[in-house]
Order: sequence, then structure tokens, then C-alpha cells
Amino acid sequence: MTQIELAKNNKISGLMKAIAKQEGRSSEYIREKIASGQIAILKNKVHKVRPSAVGKGLRTKINANIGTSTKKSNLKLELKKLKVAIKSGADTVMDLSVGGDLKNIRRQILKNSSIPVGTVPIYETAVNAQSKLGSFLKMSAEDIFQTIEGQAKDGVDFFTVHAGITRKSLDLLKNHKRILGIVSRGGAMLASWMAYNKKENPLFEDFDRLLEIAYEYDVVLSLGDSLRPGSIFDATDKIQISELKTLGELTKRARQKNVQVIVEGPGHVPLDQIQKNIILEKKLCHNAPFYVLGPLVTDIACGYDHISSSIGGAIAASAGADFLCYVTPSEHLRQPSVEDVKEGVIASRIAAHSADIVKGITSALKWDRAMSVARKERNWKKQINLSIDPEKAAILRGPVNGHPVDVCTMCGNYCSIKLMEECLKA
Amino acid sequence: MTQIELAKNNKISGLMKAIAKQEGRSSEYIREKIASGQIAILKNKVHKVRPSAVGKGLRTKINANIGTSTKKSNLKLELKKLKVAIKSGADTVMDLSVGGDLKNIRRQILKNSSIPVGTVPIYETAVNAQSKLGSFLKMSAEDIFQTIEGQAKDGVDFFTVHAGITRKSLDLLKNHKRILGIVSRGGAMLASWMAYNKKENPLFEDFDRLLEIAYEYDVVLSLGDSLRPGSIFDATDKIQISELKTLGELTKRARQKNVQVIVEGPGHVPLDQIQKNIILEKKLCHNAPFYVLGPLVTDIACGYDHISSSIGGAIAASAGADFLCYVTPSEHLRQPSVEDVKEGVIASRIAAHSADIVKGITSALKWDRAMSVARKERNWKKQINLSIDPEKAAILRGPVNGHPVDVCTMCGNYCSIKLMEECLKA
Repeated sequence: MTQIELAKNNKISGLMKAIAKQEGRSSEYIREKIASGQIAILKNKVHKVRPSAVGKGLRTKINANIGTSTKKSNLKLELKKLKVAIKSGADTVMDLSVGGDLKNIRRQILKNSSIPVGTVPIYETAVNAQSKLGSFLKMSAEDIFQTIEGQAKDGVDFFTVHAGITRKSLDLLKNHKRILGIVSRGGAMLASWMAYNKKENPLFEDFDRLLEIAYEYDVVLSLGDSLRPGSIFDATDKIQISELKTLGELTKRARQKNVQVIVEGPGHVPLDQIQKNIILEKKLCHNAPFYVLGPLVTDIACGYDHISSSIGGAIAASAGADFLCYVTPSEHLRQPSVEDVKEGVIASRIAAHSADIVKGITSALKWDRAMSVARKERNWKKQINLSIDPEKAAILRGPVNGHPVDVCTMCGNYCSIKLMEECLKA
Repeated sequence: MTQIELAKNNKISGLMKAIAKQEGRSSEYIREKIASGQIAILKNKVHKVRPSAVGKGLRTKINANIGTSTKKSNLKLELKKLKVAIKSGADTVMDLSVGGDLKNIRRQILKNSSIPVGTVPIYETAVNAQSKLGSFLKMSAEDIFQTIEGQAKDGVDFFTVHAGITRKSLDLLKNHKRILGIVSRGGAMLASWMAYNKKENPLFEDFDRLLEIAYEYDVVLSLGDSLRPGSIFDATDKIQISELKTLGELTKRARQKNVQVIVEGPGHVPLDQIQKNIILEKKLCHNAPFYVLGPLVTDIACGYDHISSSIGGAIAASAGADFLCYVTPSEHLRQPSVEDVKEGVIASRIAAHSADIVKGITSALKWDRAMSVARKERNWKKQINLSIDPEKAAILRGPVNGHPVDVCTMCGNYCSIKLMEECLKA
């Protein structure tokens, strides 16, 4: 039985207990929310990994994308990114490789990861068809499902499946104005395939087959948003909402078949539309956990999209998004470097954590309180240790070269906290 | 006559026309909002500088703090920071020096700055008293006003004056629980002085004298918030709001005497209290332009407080804050480096710009649209040029080593935009 099936049958599993402990919630709370589809546990039955859960009432999680590209493929480098992502505090990683020996890369990442691993199986299908048949457009529906089954067997914990893009979507795209049509790589692959082969999307048409595979391994389906806006001017348009409605229907079908499901969201969204996007997703997708990419609140922050994304992510999470996919400084420019992975994870964690404070997550509040107290005490060791990245904080503070150890080089003896301590003593 | 006096008398000055042109608004709009105190032009009568204005309907401005510390004082380094701040796109700088020859540093910054310069005059008074009298607590009220007058004569465009902290505030501080009492350096200096000398705050008690100096040079008074929260747990408390009320009264008095005024705000504020803080300031301070420091949405982001601050700043500005004071990665740890200044400016600009999009600022919308179109066209030269930091964007994109020039190393030939172009062609 899958976790959602157990939960519906009023059974509290070991996994549910583990999540309850991690999150500081009761096991019954976790069970109830899994049963209603508001929480999903990311863990394939055959993958030995510390589970992580996303959804209502839980700490906001963050995902780091890693993986080779067609232009740059180096397994060692990707394993280094995996290590750095975990060390920096990512809750999950996704292997988005499209270059090199994909099967081996995925298995190595699964083996080396202590956190749940997601993939976008259509990539492997496309890359194989490209190399064997000369074009990814020649892949078959059968190829797609076989890849998915193979990856499930390998232990992948969650799949992004672009099941919501249909032939109707392609018509909408043609008839409605948008600056950037499709900016989802998997979505564009499927759209191209559908247009070239004049066929419906197999993941949509044969969704039940997908559900059977996901059920067998308890893989969480992350319903991809192929039609997410790639420009703030395309945000929350008819095209995007139309797909969201389809994802809502697929969510219901997945739950009926006892498959855990989460829903993916935008993308590029102006600040004042973010909350609306969360409300819409929760409504149209029956409160399924919401996994957002960014959102980016401006299109011009190339080189600093991790910051643009942390603004959007913080607002999204505080409005109810459950899971943030990081964005690195390299977004829109190149494959991220190891350093980029770290920057992306930290920026995303700041967004998630600042939202957790207003979500009332106890561990988040406790952390901030401890830091404020350490600051009041001018206890620098504690402040460094409590920083989101103690190593960087220690480097920035630097060695105490003869200056009083209880202040920093900014204010020196005019440290307001020190002045007030002396003032209130007097 | 000052700009507000001219505006009240229905006169449109050359400065107002210049601002109208910068902002793409009518001169009459600028005049009207200056008259009602909703816009302030930052420009001392005797300072030769490109003016900048903050307030209702204008592009959100950002300020970069530079200046020496008691532990590290190097004029050349500060001038380098000034240059980098301007190059990175700061709208104003504040010289917060407390180490070295303060008069000379200030004059050099004023001379070398093409953008308005602000200061916190109490610093110079305190530092002088410390060196001449052995303790800053021995400065006199007369010393304070003489420093202010001297700095106004030198051409400083705006002053942070902590006129809102009173003996009543000190009582409040003693009687109400807070984790961190005062985290404003100038505020702590004044509070210590008041407690030690058992006197009222001269800037509050003799506010009219301050107004006379500001009037003579048309220096904008930035009413400092000595009692801003230094921990998210102290945010929006009775102590903070009590000072804000005083600042509202002082705002009215300044306007009556034809002195332009803006109001400073927090600080450390949880995400869900930021909008409320803006609404309160606009209400209690009669719609005076609001100048916020951050706000920081969590206390634990040491080393990355520019990101925490850009989250808070974006939310604040989109809710109506007019002017953002940057925060650098070094906040809470050390005096910022040249590199930190750049990082802080860019992060703050992203916050301001993403808010300007939802404020409907035409230039902001135009910029984003141009970027989205360049992205659709896969015109990399344009994308780089339109990036907030073209130099960094160009470095990240890197040389095109044999890979197709119209995509990047992330997706290579699986570039969704390229796929869709080919798909829609077919």
C-alpha cells in the first residue's frame, strides 16, 4: 500500500511517524493530511533515503536542481553539486541531466543522496531517441512509459510529469498572445512531439498507466506546468490557468488511485499576483501541495535571479506554497556551477525560512529567537553558529585584530547594543 | 524659498521640472505632491549634484551607506565605495563615517558624488566630543546644532535626525519587554546622552532650530527611527509605534515651516507585518515619503542579509515605501567592503524594481518587456545589455565555445524557446 492508501485506511505508518517527529507534529495530523492529499511524503519504496514531506503545516521545503547538460557532462562535478546542495541545506534534489550516460548518472545520484531525488523522465526518453533515432521527435509513447518505469525501479522519489499539456493547450497557445510561449524544457519537448506526430500527450491520454507505475513504487507525481509564464507579462493568463485546471482534474484522479501528488507552479510572476496564484492552485487543485519554481518577480535580474526568486519564493510560501524550487545566479545564462548551487540553496532557504516564521513553524521561530538573544548578548560565537551559513559568517566577521571582542568593525565602540547596555546599567 | 515653499505658492521650479523629466511625470504632478509633502527632492541649495526625488508615484529609490568606522578608516577606500555604489545604480549615498578626519571625508564624498549625499550629523558631534572631551556623553546641545549647521553649509542633501526619541521613550523602553532595545547607532548615542545628562533630546526639544537650518539650505530632514526593532520579535511594538507618532507630529511641524521631510522605518519585521508598517507610517506621518532600512524578514541570514533585506524591501516598496536603504552581506558582521557595497546596491535595486513593476512605473515595465522580447528572440547581446549587471551577466554566460550561439549551456539544443520556435514554424 502507498502512504496515501494507508492514511485513508486510518493506518499510521513508520514513515508517517518519522515525518511527524521531523516536523514536530502529531502522527495523526500527518496521517490525516496525507489522506486528504494535503501532504505528500517524498520517498520511493525501494530508495534508502531519509524521507521528506511537503504540505500543509510543515516546514517549507526547498529543492536544488542539478544535472548534466548536452554541452557539459561530468559525473564527478554533478556529485560535487549534490554534496554541496545537501551541505547547504537542500531538502531534495532533482537530477535534470540531459548529457552523458543518463542511467549511470541517475543511479550514482540516487546512491549518493541522503535526501529524496526527483527527475523529469521525459528527458531521458528524448535524449535516447535523439541518439538512437536521430531525433527526440521519434520517441514513442511506449518509450516514455518504459523510461518512467525504469526510473521508478531505480528508486526515484518524485517525478515531474508534464501531463497537463494537451492538444487543446497548443490551440490556446496559437490563439492567445504571449511573449514567451513555453519555457518548460519538458513541456516544450512534449509539445514539439505532439505537433510533429499529430498526437495527444501520452502522459495525459494514458494517465492511468502513469498512476499504476507511481502506485507500485509510491513515487510522488509532481504535475509539471508546461505552460508556466516565462515573462511577467504572461503571468496568470488564460493559457496558464487552463493547464492548472487540467492539473486539478489529474490530482483528483491520482488521489482516487492512491497515488500521492503535488502540483508545480510558476515561474515569472509580478509581486502582486503571487498570492492570487497560490489561492488559485489551492482551489483548482483541491489543496494539493504547491511546488513553485521561483517565482521570479522581474525578468531583468540575470546574474542575480536567486535574489529575484527569493523575493517571489518568500511571498509564495508565506501565502501557502509548500515547496520552493531554487533558482541560481546562473539562471537564464548557463548551467549552474558548484558555487551557484550553494548560492541558490541559501537564497531559497532564506525565502522558505522567512515564510515559515509567518506560517508559525515552531522550529523557525525558535531559531530566530535564539539569534536575537545571542545578538543582545553580543555573543559572537553563538551568532556565527546560528547563522544560515556559519562558514561565510565567520569569514566575514574575520579575525578579531585587537579590536574589542564584543563588537564588530562596523560601529566599533559605538555599537548601539553595547551603548544601551551601559546606559541602562547607569 | 525651499522647494516645498515654492510648491505651496504654486511655483514650478527648475528642480521640479528636472525631476518631472527624470520620472516621466508632469511638472504639475511633482509640484502638487511636494506641496502636500508626499514627494521630497533631495538636494541642498549649495550642493552641485544631480537631484533625486523620493515619494508618491516616483520610481522607488535606493540608498547605499558608506563611511569609515572607528576600527577602519581609509578615505581612498570610501571614495572607491562611492564610485562602485554610483556605478551599480545607487540613487543616493549616506556617509556614516565615525573614524578619521570626518570633515575632510565628508567634503571629499560631497565633491566626488554625482548623487545626493546624506549624513547622520550626531556621529560627528559624538566623535568630536569623544576625542576632545574624552567621552561622547560630554557633547552639548550647542555642539549638536553647530555640527548640523556646518554640514548643511558643506552641502549635505539630507540628514538623518533622531528627533523622535524622548525621555518618555526611555521610560517606555524600561517598562516594556523587548529582546533588543535600541539598534540605531545615532539613537543609542542620543539615548545614552539623555540618560547620562538627565536631559531631553535637543533635537526634539529644539526642533525649531533644526528646522531653521534645514530651511536655509533646503536640506531634507529624514526623521530617524531610533526605536526601530532589531529583532523580528520586537517588530511593530508599542515602543516603535510610539516613536512613529512623534515623527508624525514633527512631520507636520516641518511642513508648516516649509522644510521637506521624509520618515525612516524598520528594521527587522516579519513578512506579514510589513504592509501594516507602511500603512501605519502613511497614516501617522500624513503620507510623508517612507524610507525603510531593509526590512529584514529574518534574523538568521548573517552573510546574506542583502537577500533577507531584498525580500522585505520588495514587499515594503510594493506596499508603498518610497526609498530603500540597502543592506549588505556584511550587515551584523563587519564594515562593508567594496564588493559588499556592490552586492547590496544590486539586491536593493532588484527589490525596488520588482516593486516598481507593480506600482505601474512605466520605465520599469518597459525594461522588463524589452528583456522578455530579447529572450524570446534569443538575442544574447540584448539580454546581457538589459541585465541589471551586464558585466556579471556576460561573465556568467561565458564565451561561446563552439556551442550554438543562440542557446545557453543549460539546455543546449533542448532550449524550450528554440524548440517552440521550430515547433510553431512546422
